[in-house]
Formats: sequence, structure tokens, C-alpha cells
Amino acid sequence: MSSNAQPAGSSSLEWHKYPVQVYPHHTDYAGVVWHGTYLTWLEAARIERLQALGLGYHEMVNLGYELPVVEINIRYHTAVTMGDRIIVKTRLEARAGVRIILAHRIESVDGSRLHVSGNLTLVAIDRTSNKIARTLPEAIEQVISSL
Amino acid sequence: MSSNAQPAGSSSLEWHKYPVQVYPHHTDYAGVVWHGTYLTWLEAARIERLQALGLGYHEMVNLGYELPVVEINIRYHTAVTMGDRIIVKTRLEARAGVRIILAHRIESVDGSRLHVSGNLTLVAIDRTSNKIARTLPEAIEQVISSL
Amino acid sequence: MSSNAQPAGSSSLEWHKYPVQVYPHHTDYAGVVWHGTYLTWLEAARIERLQALGLGYHEMVNLGYELPVVEINIRYHTAVTMGDRIIVKTRLEARAGVRIILAHRIESVDGSRLHVSGNLTLVAIDRTSNKIARTLPEAIEQVISSL
Amino acid sequence: MSSNAQPAGSSSLEWHKYPVQVYPHHTDYAGVVWHGTYLTWLEAARIERLQALGLGYHEMVNLGYELPVVEINIRYHTAVTMGDRIIVKTRLEARAGVRIILAHRIESVDGSRLHVSGNLTLVAIDRTSNKIARTLPEAIEQVISSL
Repeated sequence: MSSNAQPAGSSSLEWHKYPVQVYPHHTDYAGVVWHGTYLTWLEAARIERLQALGLGYHEMVNLGYELPVVEINIRYHTAVTMGDRIIVKTRLEARAGVRIILAHRIESVDGSRLHVSGNLTLVAIDRTSNKIARTLPEAIEQVISSL
Repeated sequence: MSSNAQPAGSSSLEWHKYPVQVYPHHTDYAGVVWHGTYLTWLEAARIERLQALGLGYHEMVNLGYELPVVEINIRYHTAVTMGDRIIVKTRLEARAGVRIILAHRIESVDGSRLHVSGNLTLVAIDRTSNKIARTLPEAIEQVISSL
Repeated sequence: MSSNAQPAGSSSLEWHKYPVQVYPHHTDYAGVVWHGTYLTWLEAARIERLQALGLGYHEMVNLGYELPVVEINIRYHTAVTMGDRIIVKTRLEARAGVRIILAHRIESVDGSRLHVSGNLTLVAIDRTSNKIARTLPEAIEQVISSL
Repeated sequence: MSSNAQPAGSSSLEWHKYPVQVYPHHTDYAGVVWHGTYLTWLEAARIERLQALGLGYHEMVNLGYELPVVEINIRYHTAVTMGDRIIVKTRLEARAGVRIILAHRIESVDGSRLHVSGNLTLVAIDRTSNKIARTLPEAIEQVISSL
């Protein structure tokens, strides 16, 4: 390997950014975003990340696979208020076969405030057997590899 | 017909009652229930109504039918606040074949305040053809008839 | 008034367009968008419409006013499937003082399929008195007028 | 104290049980409960637990305090399907001042299947200062202590 070779998986060091605007249905009585709402944004950010790599989530499903969340570990740092515009950051944290850990950070647009941080673990499922997939079709493998 | 005979379909004159407790995730920044949340309660009330008549909604789906909402006409009268306990009332308003109109009223437990009123229209769908069902299996027909 | 004057409120004839991508959390067991999910999109479309005219919804709230939904009349024509990209169209249907009726159409991106159509009625509320606003501050009135 | 005495705080060893019925709006395209939906049930279970001890969550808010979620660590073991009836179990895992860790298990009614397990961390907030509460009013302290 030459000295200037790219390290394997280096793309994972860059954050994918997904912007969100906060609407009333995201909030609760306290005037801030309800804690469960963030999971809808993490899902949207994750799917947009895959799509940017060429794989629509519905295409993955049509190919017979899914990528459900099997573990959530997140911390809430500061609240997000109605009308705020925030950025959901996503990047690959680790991968072991069909098990993928994504790191997330939800920040203010200027990056000065951290609202949420944590990891979500996903596992590829074969829809036919309804079990963990042993291998993935090339079209999916390629995209997961380039995460 | 004697003067004190019950009118046909009189069961539809009685309201089925489904109680709800308001939690934070039901509310928005204004401290009251977000307008879309009520649709989750109408769905729960409708399904409990069918279940009380002997038909679980998942059983209907397993039999190859669904009862999706095709029209919503509702008015919001007074807001519902976090911690409130309210009653979702449901009854048959009209039926024409596989098209059903349910009337709803959402009221305070003591009945003194009306929060929401209106109608939802549902149509039975055959899951195989993905079209409006022409007829319904006996198990479903019986329950719809006794609504 | 000259014969070629623009009719009053002519801006209302143009639809404001808000694009949506369908994610898993929007759908239900039937593989299509759950009927209540559309209300989150109508809310987002409505707020983006106001924002395009210069009024953030949170700014309206900070000024002491809200614009809650008081009536919903919508029909579901064809289902929307996961992965679909659709357009939420919004325009002013009618206005009487602080009472506003917005017309909505949810269509496929190419406009060939109509998914949802209908009206939402909103009423401006004064947050201090928690009653219907008699008049609106200039900053809000101007935006509502130009809807 | 005799050697077989119950350890202090033994009440925390008992699970509070909150039953849930799965409706369509809880599910996603895969026919099972969407992963974020469980947070609405954990919230309901937690509030019912406090209420059973004599403290409505809205009463806590009226007293000037909140108990927001600041950390989530949960694992999904097996999916929950539409129509299922399940039990959400809650108990105190640990407490350090105004910081509380609740353990949760979501199981089938007969206890034979584990669907979700994990911990949620909550911190009492003083609504006036919008900061972590130093102490709690007696009415709240008593209930938290008896968790």
C-alpha cells in the first residue's frame, strides 16, 4: 500500500448533514421538541444519507431487505424550540457484517449548540426469512460499504 | 307499528365511549392537544368499538379486508389540556353498502364540555384487489351490521 | 378602478408548493401513509407559506397570536406509498376577518395523481385573552392579507 | 435487623405494569410497531406510575417542575405486531438527587416474549429558572421517594 493511500472507511469521518425546521407538531406543552420527535428526524437523515449514496430505502425494501433500529443510545443536551432550524448530522461509527452503528449529532445551524448526541444500531434483515441477513445483494452492499 | 316500538337500527343511537388520558406527547407548544392527535384517539375508539362487537381490526386485516378513512369532517370547539381525562364517543351515523359514516364527539368526562365533533367516512377495501369490496365475509358483515 | 385591474386577492389563485418525501414513520401496516400523517404535512406547508411571506409562525406566537385549526374537511383519493415524493399545495380559499380557509391538494410530483384534497379553517387567537382576536397587529395583518 | 430483612427501597424491585393495545397508527410499512412509538408508551407508563403514587404529571408541572428525559438506552429484541396486547413494565433502577433512572421492559401479556428493554434517565427541572432543580417540594419528593 502506498503511503498516500486513503485509509479504509475514511468517508465515515465526514458528517452527512440534514436540515430540519421545527413545527408545532414536533413540540410538547413545554414549548420545546418532544424527546421522541428526534427519532423521526434521525430516520429522515439516515434515509437521505442512503439516498445520497444511490439507494432509496424503499428500493432496499423492494429488494427484500430492511434496516431496522435494534438499539438506541442517545443523550439530550439542550432543548430545541419551535421555529428553530437545526442540523441532524449522521456518520458511520462502526460496522460488523450486517450490523451498523451510526453516530448522530443534532446541532444548531451555526454549530454552536449541541442538542442531542448518540448512536443508533441497525441490523439488515432479510424480509423473506424475517431473520438477520447473512449477506447483502451487491446493490445494497456497495452503498453500505461507502457509508 | 305500535307507538312505542324501537326504530330499526336503534343501536346506532347509543354512543360507544372510549376514555383517554392526555400525556405530554399529545400536546404542542400551546399547552393543549395538537389537532392531529385526535385522529389517533378516533382510531383507537373505532377499533375498540369493533372489538367490543367481536371483531379485532387485525382479524379483519387477516381476513383480507381493511376499513380505511376516506373522508374527515371535524370541528374543534374547545381545547383539551395536558392531564385532562376525556371521553371519545363513537356511533354509526349512516351506512351505504361498504361505506360507513361514523359520528364522533370528544367530551369532558362529565359531559359538560364539547371538545371535538364530526364525522369520519370509512370504506371497506379488499386487500387482494386493493379495491373497494363488493361484499364482506359473514364474520365482518355481522359486526358492521350491528354497529 | 380600471378594467384591467387585478382582482382583489388574486394571489390566492396560485398554489404554494411544499415537497415531501415519505419515510417509514409516515406509514402504517398497510404500507401506505397513515391518514393522520397528512396533517403534519399540511401544517408544515402552511407554515412555510407564511414564512415565504415574511412571517415565521414562532414570530406570530411571540407577538402574542396563534392560528389554530378549528375545522378540517378533507378527502383521501389515492394512497401514498413509502419512498414517494409528493407535493402539498396550499392557497387561500376564503377569508372573513380573522377566520381563514385554506384549500389544500396533495399530488404526485408530476401532478398526474391527486392523493388528498380539502380545506382547513383557521382562526387567529389572542394568546393573552385566549379568545378570538378582534384585530391583528400590522405585521401579521399584512402577511395574512397577502396570502 | 434480622438477616432476612427486606432491603430498603425494596418497592423498586416490583414492576409497575401498563397494558397497551397496538393500533394501526403505532405501526409502519413493515407491519410492526415503529421503533419511536415505544417512547409514547414509556411516557404513558411512567406518568401512570406517578399517578398511582398520587402525583399527576400535570400537577407536577403546575407546581413548577418537570421531569424530562435526558438519556435513552434501549434495545429492541422482538417486533410487536398490530393487534397485539403488550405490557410496559417500569421500575426505579437508581436515583441520585433529582436524577432518576427508570428501567423498562416491554413484554407480551403472558411474559413469554421480551420486546424491548432498557433505561431512561430523567432529571427534575425547575420551570422558573429552567435549570436542574436543587430540591423538590415535599409533595413531589414524597412520590419520587416512594417510586
